[in-house]
Amino acid sequence: MIKSFHPPVRTLMGPGPSDVNPRILEALSRPTIGHLDPVFIDMMDEVKSLLQYAFQTENKLTLPVSAPGSAGMETVFTNLLESGDKVIICQNGVFGGRMKENAERCGAQAIMVEDVWGETVDIDKAEQALSENPDAKALAFVHAETSTGARSDAEALCALAQKYDCLSIVDAVTSLGGIELKVDDWGIDAIYSGTQKCLSCVPGLSPVSFSDRAAKVISSRKRKVQSWFLDLNLVMGYWGTEAKRAYHHTAPINSLYALHEALVILQEEGLEQAWQRHALNHQAFAAGIKAMGLGFVVAEDVRLPQLNAVSFPTSINDADVRNALLNEYNLEIGSGLGALAGKVWRIGLMGYASNRTNVLFCLSALANVLAARGMDIDSKGTLAAANTVYNTKA
Amino acid sequence: MIKSFHPPVRTLMGPGPSDVNPRILEALSRPTIGHLDPVFIDMMDEVKSLLQYAFQTENKLTLPVSAPGSAGMETVFTNLLESGDKVIICQNGVFGGRMKENAERCGAQAIMVEDVWGETVDIDKAEQALSENPDAKALAFVHAETSTGARSDAEALCALAQKYDCLSIVDAVTSLGGIELKVDDWGIDAIYSGTQKCLSCVPGLSPVSFSDRAAKVISSRKRKVQSWFLDLNLVMGYWGTEAKRAYHHTAPINSLYALHEALVILQEEGLEQAWQRHALNHQAFAAGIKAMGLGFVVAEDVRLPQLNAVSFPTSINDADVRNALLNEYNLEIGSGLGALAGKVWRIGLMGYASNRTNVLFCLSALANVLAARGMDIDSKGTLAAANTVYNTKA
Repeated sequence: MIKSFHPPVRTLMGPGPSDVNPRILEALSRPTIGHLDPVFIDMMDEVKSLLQYAFQTENKLTLPVSAPGSAGMETVFTNLLESGDKVIICQNGVFGGRMKENAERCGAQAIMVEDVWGETVDIDKAEQALSENPDAKALAFVHAETSTGARSDAEALCALAQKYDCLSIVDAVTSLGGIELKVDDWGIDAIYSGTQKCLSCVPGLSPVSFSDRAAKVISSRKRKVQSWFLDLNLVMGYWGTEAKRAYHHTAPINSLYALHEALVILQEEGLEQAWQRHALNHQAFAAGIKAMGLGFVVAEDVRLPQLNAVSFPTSINDADVRNALLNEYNLEIGSGLGALAGKVWRIGLMGYASNRTNVLFCLSALANVLAARGMDIDSKGTLAAANTVYNTKA
Repeated sequence: MIKSFHPPVRTLMGPGPSDVNPRILEALSRPTIGHLDPVFIDMMDEVKSLLQYAFQTENKLTLPVSAPGSAGMETVFTNLLESGDKVIICQNGVFGGRMKENAERCGAQAIMVEDVWGETVDIDKAEQALSENPDAKALAFVHAETSTGARSDAEALCALAQKYDCLSIVDAVTSLGGIELKVDDWGIDAIYSGTQKCLSCVPGLSPVSFSDRAAKVISSRKRKVQSWFLDLNLVMGYWGTEAKRAYHHTAPINSLYALHEALVILQEEGLEQAWQRHALNHQAFAAGIKAMGLGFVVAEDVRLPQLNAVSFPTSINDADVRNALLNEYNLEIGSGLGALAGKVWRIGLMGYASNRTNVLFCLSALANVLAARGMDIDSKGTLAAANTVYNTKA
């Protein structure tokens, strides 16, 4: 007989899921109601308004896809692209590669613009690809590369796309709620995110938003979207603006309660205040990491505050340290992905997890674990460096 | 400013979501841990074992898809079918039509076998289609039609599929946990279900299972699955049997806690006991409905105990009655779909909601609401008829 599962209480400082605010866990467990209940429909409208605030957009086609961030990516590609279309994809980490997979499975041709992992998308190379491919339908890139911690210049890239009459597709899985992101001001045509990063919600939903221009591309497709489940022409019968909502699929009711609460929390704090909080906690954390003698993969001016790719001496065994943190401290940090596997830790300071307690706890635990493995660590100096940032900037 | 959302407490007796066991809501709110945490991986293995029990199968390829039942359907069709394939689809309600949509979006040809809504899939017509289409790759049908409440003979249909060397695809969204279902004994090749029906869990996941024969079809496809998110060749890197699980997408952690708990509850009760409970509560409910002078769409011998399509006099306004039940009793029942819209109510007795309290409450509320609208209802006789069933059979 298998028994009920009771998870350990971890501190989640990996690349996501991040620590979930207890208010959100409580919202998740509120009584389930029907997906066509008028009270629930009203809540859906609030979720849309709150997402418009989080994305800084007035896009009508703004909703959470009923599946994780990867499905949000697929929603964007499968709705916008048709067989034979051409899309320019800028890759500077794992997720650009996943975009390529998605585009090709739609029968589209992916023109890849490759950048070094850990660096930002190169604007000049993107422009060159756009000028060489005047028939490209879209330019796609990752705003905040979760695999490296690099922030690309979404505003400049979207301006480029507009200049070349291309749709812009932005992966904001790790950026939404953590760093500046302005869908309307920057002219973003299609964007997707996840709930388990800087929104501090449970994983399982993917907020998306489409400009009117992108929405028109979707509604005037030559062929049906190849996914029935993700076809926005159908999904909008349920999430749309009509008074009578048509059943498409059964919405993940309780997960939507959680997202609603996460967005209410973001609204209470204020978007700009949330961005500033992420920046401050990163600065304190980075000061501690430097005092510990460790380095960053990404240059300071393009580094994501919410995802810190920390490099360590080759004498250190990656998995050994992560296991010690997990088993001795109940602290989860992430490993490197792809080209960075075994070479970096990915330490998240996302959403609710981006706070002084977590910063000091993580620095302290990491200092202890590394010292126990023979590294010469100034634990006291590490914490002092972080606290100095708080005391100076708070 | 938008405030936190606090749903009303409803009794859910529509076509799903059904009432969620409070144990499951509590499980949902347990602390989130990482999707690659070894403790979580162990829990995933338990979920697989528990699903194998629920499906009565030893299929290795058994897992919950990270999205609602409709995505489970798409997972089956998009993994098994390739462009140019032919599939025979038996339709006796809404969901056979959705299968057609899915098949065609995979580039497959759907041969439709149409049956009357409210009746079962006709075995002879299915066999005729199989004999006329020796090149068909699969035979697909809905075991428990949620739109009508009819139960088709899955065992006989799967035997037919085997006779004609076809894969069998079974929609068990509403049947799993509610009526007899034996994947291995019946030779089912591919099956999908939902969590919000007879498992009484929150909506958002879709358990699926594939026979070795079906798994081989998936692993030896000529072309990639058109959906990256639903490609089981990739998903199995995470849900598979390898000691090291590869990240594919971020699993919906807390929803999986809930599914685990729902399946533990099913295991505690016992599958056959759950089937018997659904049968008993249906009999009591049906006795009350008859005493009230209302009818059933589906003949008794093929009627689903968990989904009762109840017909009412044309003098009765469908929406008016459902609104009164919702607003005055916090009781949700469902409307008719498609050909049955406005003509029937769909009253669910699914999972946790299949209990004596709900049966008596629903009969009583319905009797009151109908009496208030001028129908000649013997309220006392209605409850007595239901109680007699309990007193006789319990």
